[in-house]
Amino acid sequence: MSVEERLRALGLALPAPTRAPPGAKLPFAWVHIVGDRALVSGHGPTNPDGTLASPLGKVGATVTLEQGYAAARRTALAMLASLKLALGDLERVDRWVRAFGMVNAAPGFDREPAVINGFSDLILALWGPERGQHARSAVGMAELPFGIPVEIEAEVLLRG
Amino acid sequence: MSVEERLRALGLALPAPTRAPPGAKLPFAWVHIVGDRALVSGHGPTNPDGTLASPLGKVGATVTLEQGYAAARRTALAMLASLKLALGDLERVDRWVRAFGMVNAAPGFDREPAVINGFSDLILALWGPERGQHARSAVGMAELPFGIPVEIEAEVLLRG
Amino acid sequence: MSVEERLRALGLALPAPTRAPPGAKLPFAWVHIVGDRALVSGHGPTNPDGTLASPLGKVGATVTLEQGYAAARRTALAMLASLKLALGDLERVDRWVRAFGMVNAAPGFDREPAVINGFSDLILALWGPERGQHARSAVGMAELPFGIPVEIEAEVLLRG
Repeated sequence: MSVEERLRALGLALPAPTRAPPGAKLPFAWVHIVGDRALVSGHGPTNPDGTLASPLGKVGATVTLEQGYAAARRTALAMLASLKLALGDLERVDRWVRAFGMVNAAPGFDREPAVINGFSDLILALWGPERGQHARSAVGMAELPFGIPVEIEAEVLLRG
Repeated sequence: MSVEERLRALGLALPAPTRAPPGAKLPFAWVHIVGDRALVSGHGPTNPDGTLASPLGKVGATVTLEQGYAAARRTALAMLASLKLALGDLERVDRWVRAFGMVNAAPGFDREPAVINGFSDLILALWGPERGQHARSAVGMAELPFGIPVEIEAEVLLRG
Repeated sequence: MSVEERLRALGLALPAPTRAPPGAKLPFAWVHIVGDRALVSGHGPTNPDGTLASPLGKVGATVTLEQGYAAARRTALAMLASLKLALGDLERVDRWVRAFGMVNAAPGFDREPAVINGFSDLILALWGPERGQHARSAVGMAELPFGIPVEIEAEVLLRG
C-alpha cells in the first residue's frame, strides 16, 4: 500500500496547501530540498482548505490535551500536503529523520510528548515502524505564531 | 555582484565578530563545518564592534515589532560576520538550508514571523530567491541569553 | 584513551538507558541513524538507573544555576548511554555536529549558556577540542516534559 492509500484507509485526506493568514508575509519555503534532504518548515494545524484550524490558544488552558493531540495530527497532515506539493508524490519520502515538536504551553503544562504523539503516531502508521522512525523533541513554547497550539518542523530523506 | 557587493549596495556592513558579554563562557563554535555543511550556532543582534546590540528585552513589551525586525536583520549580519571569519569568503556559501528563528516573546505576542522576516528578507536580498531560499520556523521563547530579543541558528551548504 | 576510558578517568559512569516515566508513551528513537548521521532526540538528566533525576523544575527558581549545570552534564551522560546502546561503541562517534540546549527557564532567567555549558564542557573533555567541537544554541523554554530542568537534542557524525 502506498502512503496515500494508507491515509485513505485511515479515513484521512490531505488538506489544501497551507495558506498564510491575511496580512502575514512568510518569505520562506514550506519544504526546502537540498540534495537528498527535504527540510520541512514549521507547520501548524490546518483545515481542509489550508487555513489555520481552531482551536487556537495554549494547551493546558483553553486547548485540552486531546485537542492538542488532534492538532499535532492535523499538523502532520499539513506537512504531508506541503511535501506532496514540493515532491509530486509522497512515495519520494524514503525515511523520516527528525521532528521538532513545539507546544504552545500553558504555565505548568508538562505533557508535551503526549501532544506531539498526534504527529508521531500518524507518521509511524503511514510509513511503518522503520521508514517512519524519527528522532524527536517535544517541548513547551512561550508563544507560537498566530496563537497556534502546536508547531512542528522536520527533516526527511528522499529516495535516491 | 558578490554577496559583499550586494551588502554594500544596500548600505550595510558586516559587524566585527560577535564578542561574548563580560564573564560569559561560550565553549562552542559560532560556525561549525562538517563536510559540505556549515552549522551556524544561535546568534543575537550585535553592534558594529561585535558587542550585543540594544534594545534588549521582550518583543511585544519593551521592544517593538519594528525593533524586533531590525534586531533579526542585525542577527543575520552577525551570522554573516561569523561565516566570513570561518570560511574566508561569503561566496563559499552555496545555498541556505534552514533557519530557526527564536523571538524573546512577551506574553501574548504571536507575530514571530514578522520579526524573523528581518533575517529572511536580508538573506533573500543577498543570495537571491533560489540560493537564499530556506526552511524556517519562527517561534516565541520564554527567555533568551542576556535578554537578547532575537536568536537565530541556521545551516548553509558550502560550495563543492 | 578511548572516550569510555576518559569518562572513567573523570570518575563518571554511563547511566542505564533512559526510561520513560510511568504512563508516558514515547514513540520515537532516542538515537536515529541516517547514513553517517546520528540524530539524538531530546534527552533530560537521569539517575544511574535511567529514571529522570531530581531536582525537577525551573532554573532560576527552584533549581539553581549550579544544579542546572549539573543537570546538563547528566543530560550529556544520558545521551551517551543512548548513543552506546544504538552504536555499540562510543568510538563510532567521529565528531559532534550540533547541540540544541533547552533550559526550563524561570521568568527573567537569562543565563542559559552557563547551564548548557555542563553539556559542552563534558563533550569537549571526552572527545577533545576538535572532535568534540559543536554548533550550539542555549535558550529558555516555557515548559519541558515532566518538569525536567534541561533538555538537549544533538547530531553527531559517525565514522565511515
